[in-house]
Amino acid sequence: RINPDRLWDSLMEMAKIGPGVAGGNNRQTLTDADGEGRHLFKRWCEEAGLTMGVDQMGTMFARREGTDPDALPVYVGSHLDTQPTGGKYDGVLGVLGGLEVVRTLNDLGIKTRHPIVVTNWTNEEGTRFAPAMLASGVFAGQHEQDWAYARQDRDGKRFGDELERIGWKGEEEVGARKMHAFFELHIEQGPILEDEDVDIGVVTHGQGLWWLQVTLTGKDAHTGSTPMPKRRNAGLGMARVTELVHEVAMDYQPDAVGAIGHVEVYPNSRNVIPGKAVFTIDIRCPDKDILDEMRARIEEGIATICEALDIGFEVEPVGHFDPVTFDEGCVKAVRDAAERLGYSHRDIVSGAGHDACWINRVAPTAMVMCPCVDGLSHNEAEEISKEWARAGTDVLFHAVVETAGI
Amino acid sequence: RINPDRLWDSLMEMAKIGPGVAGGNNRQTLTDADGEGRHLFKRWCEEAGLTMGVDQMGTMFARREGTDPDALPVYVGSHLDTQPTGGKYDGVLGVLGGLEVVRTLNDLGIKTRHPIVVTNWTNEEGTRFAPAMLASGVFAGQHEQDWAYARQDRDGKRFGDELERIGWKGEEEVGARKMHAFFELHIEQGPILEDEDVDIGVVTHGQGLWWLQVTLTGKDAHTGSTPMPKRRNAGLGMARVTELVHEVAMDYQPDAVGAIGHVEVYPNSRNVIPGKAVFTIDIRCPDKDILDEMRARIEEGIATICEALDIGFEVEPVGHFDPVTFDEGCVKAVRDAAERLGYSHRDIVSGAGHDACWINRVAPTAMVMCPCVDGLSHNEAEEISKEWARAGTDVLFHAVVETAGI
Ligand SMILES: NC(=O)NCCC(=O)O
Ligand SMILES: NC(=O)NCCC(=O)O
Repeated sequence: RINPDRLWDSLMEMAKIGPGVAGGNNRQTLTDADGEGRHLFKRWCEEAGLTMGVDQMGTMFARREGTDPDALPVYVGSHLDTQPTGGKYDGVLGVLGGLEVVRTLNDLGIKTRHPIVVTNWTNEEGTRFAPAMLASGVFAGQHEQDWAYARQDRDGKRFGDELERIGWKGEEEVGARKMHAFFELHIEQGPILEDEDVDIGVVTHGQGLWWLQVTLTGKDAHTGSTPMPKRRNAGLGMARVTELVHEVAMDYQPDAVGAIGHVEVYPNSRNVIPGKAVFTIDIRCPDKDILDEMRARIEEGIATICEALDIGFEVEPVGHFDPVTFDEGCVKAVRDAAERLGYSHRDIVSGAGHDACWINRVAPTAMVMCPCVDGLSHNEAEEISKEWARAGTDVLFHAVVETAGI
Repeated sequence: RINPDRLWDSLMEMAKIGPGVAGGNNRQTLTDADGEGRHLFKRWCEEAGLTMGVDQMGTMFARREGTDPDALPVYVGSHLDTQPTGGKYDGVLGVLGGLEVVRTLNDLGIKTRHPIVVTNWTNEEGTRFAPAMLASGVFAGQHEQDWAYARQDRDGKRFGDELERIGWKGEEEVGARKMHAFFELHIEQGPILEDEDVDIGVVTHGQGLWWLQVTLTGKDAHTGSTPMPKRRNAGLGMARVTELVHEVAMDYQPDAVGAIGHVEVYPNSRNVIPGKAVFTIDIRCPDKDILDEMRARIEEGIATICEALDIGFEVEPVGHFDPVTFDEGCVKAVRDAAERLGYSHRDIVSGAGHDACWINRVAPTAMVMCPCVDGLSHNEAEEISKEWARAGTDVLFHAVVETAGI
């Protein structure tokens, strides 16, 4: 069993870096705070006797040797970057849970047959640079590295430049590593486990997603002196698309969700009818056909809305993954571990995207979930109990050690 | 008659300060560019033999002496600040038109009985610091000066501090000056004059306005893993209010207008349901009862929308003026001047707010309007012809000189 106090202390220590404004964190990817968090993680890994590798996407791989020189490593990890107003556990629990797995192995003097590699994937959140899970996506061959480097934040800064700036662009070729398996521990970010009072979610599937960045082009004009029929109001168009996305998601719920979280209007002045609006639609569903149908309905709806308002539009997909089915063997390892340890558990579909979703394409993969208070995440008030963290990390430990062999 | 080439050259010279990104201007109030524009205007005034006074709101008063020491001055002017993506004429034409009036008087060696004071009012646009027409509002006793000083821009910078920073906080008590009359020349910012091929708008009335700043408070949460019924989506609330404002304005058009130009959502991340939205509603009508009815309907509608979405709301009026009826005598002076000079003219209601609307409360006031291309304003593509500028300034010259007496 893992050491829950040590794990908790590390979580609290990491949370001091890039503090938020309301008790959570703002440690967005490739900021100075992200760099600082990486250094702390590196120090902990070295203290645990691990050897650090960094690839050209900045992903960190901390290796504990195995006894069989021919055995591929078992990977375990998640991400240390956060939302702008994020919590202390989203991603961080998975990385420091992985570290706790090797610290516990060290305590017990256990050597595994397969090496174990604790991993911190770069830019999982996707807030600063869309899409989410960018580095794991390049690792899994889903994106070109040059395309990833060229992703820009709102200030026009490029991913590749910012990675160099914070000093974490490694030498290692991305995706060159071969994996025996990958395990990711993550908070649920939804309410099911807590509502049902279940300790462990055994993640069997993940929802698919589309991020559609929409640009509406009307004409900025004076709000007071432009007659209503002469207006080409891009802000009104955005409002109608927001309602449309909600309607489409409601039509397919509980199996689907959708909303618009990112919004910019131009010139954003109180007395100017918006001439341009840029925003990103996020729709998700565990069923690929429904997800694509939602996208089609939304794109048709946008065309209709824009025609009525005499505004132009462009829709650019800036994030996408199909629904995921995790590896049967790895999922079983997680379920068996929960069972063996006496934790209550249920199978669950991940509502969020995770690095595990991409890695599942190139290696046998599974996820462990633990509850979070009120299902709340992507909010500084995100909270978990030490007991939940312990249960999740215990299950992670057993699944990893089982898979790595003794 | 005025000198249209000299006027045009000055307009083009001023437009070099605080250039925009698309041929217009970004010379927002109390920025460095605003300071630079003020210095240029001051130099021109001094070259024309005027004496500059500056009040504690930063408003500039350039005085040409009259022949009667007991006669109150005739004021003429507008504003040099612009929208973030503004045009070269909105406000600027009225200030430099006023300067052209005294330059022409100098050319002709005419002395008027009343002094003439060319005025540049601070923060007419209201984009950086709400409300619009801030300095003329303090001058007319509509706002407390301390309240005006405390107005904040989006970065939390205060009006009073920024006024000091750019070095244009004068000594003069605001509103101490007494006026014989005030005349403001302005582009129409709407399509009527151009559509009807009329040179001059004789402004008899101005619309009333409410700016309502709305804050909606929901709960930021993960877009992928939060079930639809659990959401408290402030962005969706904003969308519904945007539609509501449009509907209400459409119900009363052509007599009313309304839109939302300023929008912020928090945390503004692609995969976070907005937990907060802040935006400003702009509604206007020439009829006070209808305007107040529009406001009441919108406030009721906001309450209904928010109840359905389980979100909280606050509505704060951040700008207001009642509909305006300009001074009969001054309006007649404008109409007579247009008639005498042989320009086609019509009576018109101003859709926009103007410093003249406040000054009308403390002195006999009227406005002259000239057309602008496509009625387009608050847009960098705002355009007028030199002929339109000449006609408007000719009429301004005659109305001012008539009122100032020879
Ligand atoms: N787990 C998580 O919040 N990932 C970010 C990508 C997403 O929006 O699902
Ligand atoms: N004329 C003008 O654009 N004034 C700004 C205040 C308003 O929005 O009407």
